[in-house]
Parts: sequence; structure tokens; C-alpha cells
Amino acid sequence: MGKIEAQGLPGYELALQDAVTLAAGDACPPQLARALQYAVFPGGARVRPQLCMAVAAANGGGDPALTRAAAAAIELLHCASLVHDDMPCFDNASERRGKPSVHQAFGEQLALLAGDALIVAAFETLGRAAAGDPARLPPLLAVIAEGVGAPHGICAGQAWECESRVDLERYHRAKTGALFIAATAAGAVVSGGDVDAWRRLGDCIGHSYQVADDILDAAAEAAEIGKPTGQDEAHGRPSAVRSLGLDGAVAHLKALVDASVEAVPPCAGREQLQQLVRNQSRRFLPKSLAGQAA
Amino acid sequence: MGKIEAQGLPGYELALQDAVTLAAGDACPPQLARALQYAVFPGGARVRPQLCMAVAAANGGGDPALTRAAAAAIELLHCASLVHDDMPCFDNASERRGKPSVHQAFGEQLALLAGDALIVAAFETLGRAAAGDPARLPPLLAVIAEGVGAPHGICAGQAWECESRVDLERYHRAKTGALFIAATAAGAVVSGGDVDAWRRLGDCIGHSYQVADDILDAAAEAAEIGKPTGQDEAHGRPSAVRSLGLDGAVAHLKALVDASVEAVPPCAGREQLQQLVRNQSRRFLPKSLAGQAA
Repeated sequence: MGKIEAQGLPGYELALQDAVTLAAGDACPPQLARALQYAVFPGGARVRPQLCMAVAAANGGGDPALTRAAAAAIELLHCASLVHDDMPCFDNASERRGKPSVHQAFGEQLALLAGDALIVAAFETLGRAAAGDPARLPPLLAVIAEGVGAPHGICAGQAWECESRVDLERYHRAKTGALFIAATAAGAVVSGGDVDAWRRLGDCIGHSYQVADDILDAAAEAAEIGKPTGQDEAHGRPSAVRSLGLDGAVAHLKALVDASVEAVPPCAGREQLQQLVRNQSRRFLPKSLAGQAA
Repeated sequence: MGKIEAQGLPGYELALQDAVTLAAGDACPPQLARALQYAVFPGGARVRPQLCMAVAAANGGGDPALTRAAAAAIELLHCASLVHDDMPCFDNASERRGKPSVHQAFGEQLALLAGDALIVAAFETLGRAAAGDPARLPPLLAVIAEGVGAPHGICAGQAWECESRVDLERYHRAKTGALFIAATAAGAVVSGGDVDAWRRLGDCIGHSYQVADDILDAAAEAAEIGKPTGQDEAHGRPSAVRSLGLDGAVAHLKALVDASVEAVPPCAGREQLQQLVRNQSRRFLPKSLAGQAA
């Protein structure tokens, strides 16, 4: 959904560069600086910041600098969560985005610190962009923090993995859905949209993404997604494919994508955003299945 | 420096309770909720939030809710840094504040997540308190984020431990001084003080605290400070005691405390704050030495 801007890069990508350049500035310990760059660039699909900016645009747009900062903050928090999630005490993943994970490349200490510094940089980015007009900063902080902290965000989602009794829907919503909800809600905050209505869209898209991720894990080649596959089966984790079968999961995803398209709230750019949601959902899937689902 | 308020608890303590109660709310995974409570309560000396509130008060005070939130945010970030710093990949410390460290009590996964969630909760706390009047939120975010992130804050300080060549002053200023600077600067932001002048006080106090910490490590009993002592010697770490000897370090601390007292900027409550700085500095030291230094 990213609009290629005059400089040749989408706005959120420029804001990410600014944020990382400041954090990894001259005074930064050199290895931490490299780990910060490495954790954020080159990116993955940048689905969440694109979604945030698309929502703002569909609502007629917000202050451009604040919109870019909101999108970048969400991606910085996403990157931080991947760095920490890959660490040995969690998934112990050696690869991410087709290259060694951060702790594999820089060691555990720098992975822990890089994740922490990215979380701080995300909030710093919001504050900097809102310096001239802070009216929307408090609600923006609130929706973004809710997507990553406790009790509703990514940290809580990960922490459900440490419990013996888990409500699966709550687990998925916190671990995966919450940052999608933050993305649509933040887009609505910066553009003056109805935050609760846009939250529902984020929830719906997050749910689709979770099912698509289960399908990818079961049916894609590792090379296609840049990380090991077959992990749900190997770790006995619940997944849509394990409970519905591959065809059932693809059909479920199709229904969720339709629901997401319907969940786009009334706005000036509704039709265009619906088209983007549909196209984006196709990108979630392995190429062999993309035609079936969307 | 904490003023005991009507409710029987200092304001920052109430704000800490609010922040942790929200993060560890009903929807929170139960073990993460317990780890969050455990990481923040009961606290240590709460030196940084008391300093932040004392600076605001000396300047004539700021919005009470925002002042408490700023102080609490700084303490939440301090607690987060202790939780992560104690983890096996860093200090592998089994004790903190006289009880098992968070990873010792709850495991590494929950320690990592609790630290992350406390960082998020700190910024969330600031946003919530500023909702009614956000004008001071951007500079407040800036000074607090600078104290914890990269390139100048705690994350950078820790990351210097991963480098083979280290500028010691820069290392100590980032690891220890930066959050004291954040505390005085935040107190100045909320009360409309001259932020740069107050930063210098924080820098001076942070420096004293670092030297006092070196003295404690060399001369206190573990029971007195709630964590193992003799660590600088054991790990061959540079310290004021190792370079100046115990008496030399105590004399150096005395000079730094005098410099801190002088560094208190002109303000309505200057004399009272100077007295507090002197008293507080005495609390930094083992009882056997407290008389000599202040």
C-alpha cells in the first residue's frame, strides 16, 4: 500500500532511516549502531507501516510528518519484537528475513540492547514528529503502546507462551493482531478518523495475517519467506492448518479477507483501500496458493 | 527527597502503582503480571523519581499528575534496565534488592518480556498524564528517551561493555549518568525550568552516584545493599576505588557532592534542594563511611 514518494522511497522508510540514523549516531557504541541498522534494514514486507499510512490517506490524510512517524514507530516496534523473539530463550531462531538473526550476527547482549533501543526510538520518533503540534500525541502514544505492551500487546502475547493454560484467541490477538490494530488505529488518530471503527479493521486484518502465517509455515519453502518453515508442526503449536487442514485454512483465510474488505469504515478513499486490502492479502500467501485466497 | 503526600505514599509511588496495575491488569498473562509487580515493588531507594520531583518542586512545581508520571516513568525505565542487566547474557546476577532477580524467580523469557513491557509502560504513563494538556509531552519524551536509548542512554552504556575499546567517561555517563540527567531534565521540563542548567546538576549527581556505587561495591556488606559486592575487583572492572584507593575515592566523592550542591541552578527552592542533595548523597554510602563524605 506504500505510495512511492518524490524521493523514491515511501515516507515511512525515510522516517525509519531518520530514527535509526539518530539512534546509531556518532556517539553510539559501534557494534550497537550496526545491530540497529541490521535489525531494521533491509526490511521485510513493511505491511504494518503501509497499512497505517493507507488508513491515514483513506481518511483524507494527516500531518505528513506525524503520519510517517507513526508508521515508522510501528515498524520499529515490530523489528524490536522480532529481535527479542528470535533470541535463544524464545524461538532460538538463527535466521530472519533471509539472513542470520540479530543475536546470531551480534551476540545475545547486543540483540537484547538493540531491541530495547528500538522500542525507545519508536516513542522518541513520535515525540519528535509531534513537537510542533502535540494535540494528537497522547492518543497516538496510547494506541501504539497498547499494541506492544501489557496487558494487550505483543509482550503479553509472547507471555502467553509461558502459561500452561492459554486462551488461543487472546494469545493470537495479543501476539499478532494487536500491532495491526495499532497500525489502523494510529492511521485513524493522525487523520482524525473514528478510532474504534478502524480498530475493527486492524483486528480483522491481523486475524487474516495469523491464518496466512500458519499457511506459510505449513506450505511455503523456507527460501520464499526467509525463515524456517514447518515450525508449528515441529513444536506441536496450534495452527489453523493443523485444525482445519490446508484447504480448510485457505478457505478460512478467504472468508477473513472478505470480512476485512467489508470492515473498511466509510471514508473518502474506501474503495481504493478495499482494493489494497485485497491485494495485500494475496501477498501474505505462498505464490502457489495466492490465486485461491483472494 | 520524597515528600510524603496525603495518601501516605509519595506521588511517584502512586503513579508507579497505577502504571503497573494497568499493565498487569485482568487481561494480562498471570505470570507476566506477577513479574511486573515483582520488578517494581518493593522498590530500592527510588533515588531518581525523588530527584525528578524535587527539581520540579524547587522550580515552583509543575502539573502534579504530569510530574508524578515523569518521575514514575523514569523509575519504570530504571527497573526495566535492572531486569535486563541482571539476565544471564549480561551480569547473570541472581539477586537484586535483597531477593532473587526477576529471571531467577520467573525465568529468562518473562524477564525479557517484563523489561520490554516496563519500557512501554513508562512511555504510556507519560502520554496518559499529558492527555489533558500535551504541550510539555514532546520535550518530556525527548529528555526521558535520551536517558535510556541510543546513542546516549542506558542501552548505549550497556553496549559499551561489548566493545574492546571504551571511553570510560562516556561509558559511565551513558550507563549511570544519563538517567540522572533525565530525572533533573524531566523535573525542569514539567516545571518550566531551564532544562540545560538542570541537566548539568543531573550529570554531577550521576557522577557522584557512580563513584558511590564503586565504593559500595568495595566496602559494603552484601546484606546492606541487597546484591553481591566485590564485583568490580572480581571482574577486573575499572572503578574509582581501584584507581584511587578507598580513601581517595571517598575524598573524590566528597568533592563531587560539593560540586553537585553548587550546580543547583538558581530557583525558588534552591537552598532546600541543596540540603536534599547533600542528605541524599549520604544515603548512597555504606553506613560506616557516610559521615566522611557529606
